[in-house]
Amino acid sequence: MILIGERINAGFKDIAAAIREKDPTAVQKWAKLQAEAGANYLDVNIGAASRDPADMAWLVETVQQTVPTKISVDSTKIDVIEAGLEAIDGRGALINSTTADPGKLEKLITLAVKHDASLLGLAMDERGSPQNVERRVENGAMIFMAATEGGLPPDRILLDPILMPIKFMQEQAPNVLETIAQYTNLSDPPPHISVGLSNIGSKTTERGRIVRTFLVMAMAHGLDAAICNVCDEELIAAVATAELILNKEIYSDSYVRAFQVRQRL
Amino acid sequence: MILIGERINAGFKDIAAAIREKDPTAVQKWAKLQAEAGANYLDVNIGAASRDPADMAWLVETVQQTVPTKISVDSTKIDVIEAGLEAIDGRGALINSTTADPGKLEKLITLAVKHDASLLGLAMDERGSPQNVERRVENGAMIFMAATEGGLPPDRILLDPILMPIKFMQEQAPNVLETIAQYTNLSDPPPHISVGLSNIGSKTTERGRIVRTFLVMAMAHGLDAAICNVCDEELIAAVATAELILNKEIYSDSYVRAFQVRQRL
Repeated sequence: MILIGERINAGFKDIAAAIREKDPTAVQKWAKLQAEAGANYLDVNIGAASRDPADMAWLVETVQQTVPTKISVDSTKIDVIEAGLEAIDGRGALINSTTADPGKLEKLITLAVKHDASLLGLAMDERGSPQNVERRVENGAMIFMAATEGGLPPDRILLDPILMPIKFMQEQAPNVLETIAQYTNLSDPPPHISVGLSNIGSKTTERGRIVRTFLVMAMAHGLDAAICNVCDEELIAAVATAELILNKEIYSDSYVRAFQVRQRL
Repeated sequence: MILIGERINAGFKDIAAAIREKDPTAVQKWAKLQAEAGANYLDVNIGAASRDPADMAWLVETVQQTVPTKISVDSTKIDVIEAGLEAIDGRGALINSTTADPGKLEKLITLAVKHDASLLGLAMDERGSPQNVERRVENGAMIFMAATEGGLPPDRILLDPILMPIKFMQEQAPNVLETIAQYTNLSDPPPHISVGLSNIGSKTTERGRIVRTFLVMAMAHGLDAAICNVCDEELIAAVATAELILNKEIYSDSYVRAFQVRQRL
């Protein structure tokens, strides 16, 4: 399972303040906590706190000085992503994210190839977020084909079917599950499949339960990556249990701990 | 979701003693607790405590005098099942269980038709428990065809793909998930699909987590019934959450409670 830690994001007040003040403390704290929890990538996102690509470079460098974990460079802006990639010190990187919009897709594939990065593609296009399975599959397939033609092997492509808040768009959750199953048929081996997990629990009273139940149901259909709260111990234990049930983690009485150790390798 | 309460089973010491001493106290206690927790059926099983069909009749009558819940008459012996069915007071009943063994199958289909009961079929045959998907699908399809030809509609047939302890037969868990997906294609509407859920957690340290994670992953593939510990509140909350994600339960901030209320209807 590819776990991408969501916490170094200027949507959180402590990270927004850290970027503004160039104070690395909060960034270092969350880099360590998430790496320790088993994150394979740390997502870094300057969000609405800044439009300056140099701030992304600072954030990437601050994380890199703290932990050896790979970086997920997260922005909707191509120049911000490029600044993040330029700051990567040779460790693996993930571009988060492109959409199926052809102009953006082409530029980000070129950047992924140039920087030996993986590429995460959101199954949305210039018409906005998809409301059914067909649009999700179309957009995902378009991203997958363009990326492979551009030179990225399937294991450097992550497709995201766009998870939505269950409180407001409940009918989209089964559509996402169905889309995941269809993405596994795109190639052999298939691309990775990822979701922005926390979205589904937005504004709900049973957030933890909803998030972890969705994640394991999605894993049953082939999901193998998630941007999520990797510090949620119940969530990580649920992922370890799903890996066990899928026969990807070997049973031992301490399989949850074994999973975390393996994640950190 | 069809929840079948597993607790009135002579495999538990208090129930074995109740049967021996004809003391209804423990039986009444578990009938009430499981009905209150949202069980749709109460499984009753005299197990190894007795070979006397009259003891099954006593157990069924004791439960019926306590709660209005439907009864799952559980035995490997046809005469014990028949005695249980004869004692049913007109409420719905479930025969638990037949196998794909033709002789047994034919007799239990006849009993199900005669008593207006549903029939649960285990995907095993005279060769024992299935070790792969193919045998599970073959046996399930054989039971399904025989039962429909015998006069049972799909909604009175439950197929059980045979869940095994993950600690000892880990590779069978993904086979069960795959079998569930295939059973949903047997007819439209499909038969119900059920598992003996507690089996998977046998002798494990993380029993509750394994059991509830498997259940929601199986629900993602089409499972809609389980014989289980309905008094496990975390398990019931997980089932409610999976129903929500599958868009079968409408979101409200108190959806877990709403699910339980609906189960009791």
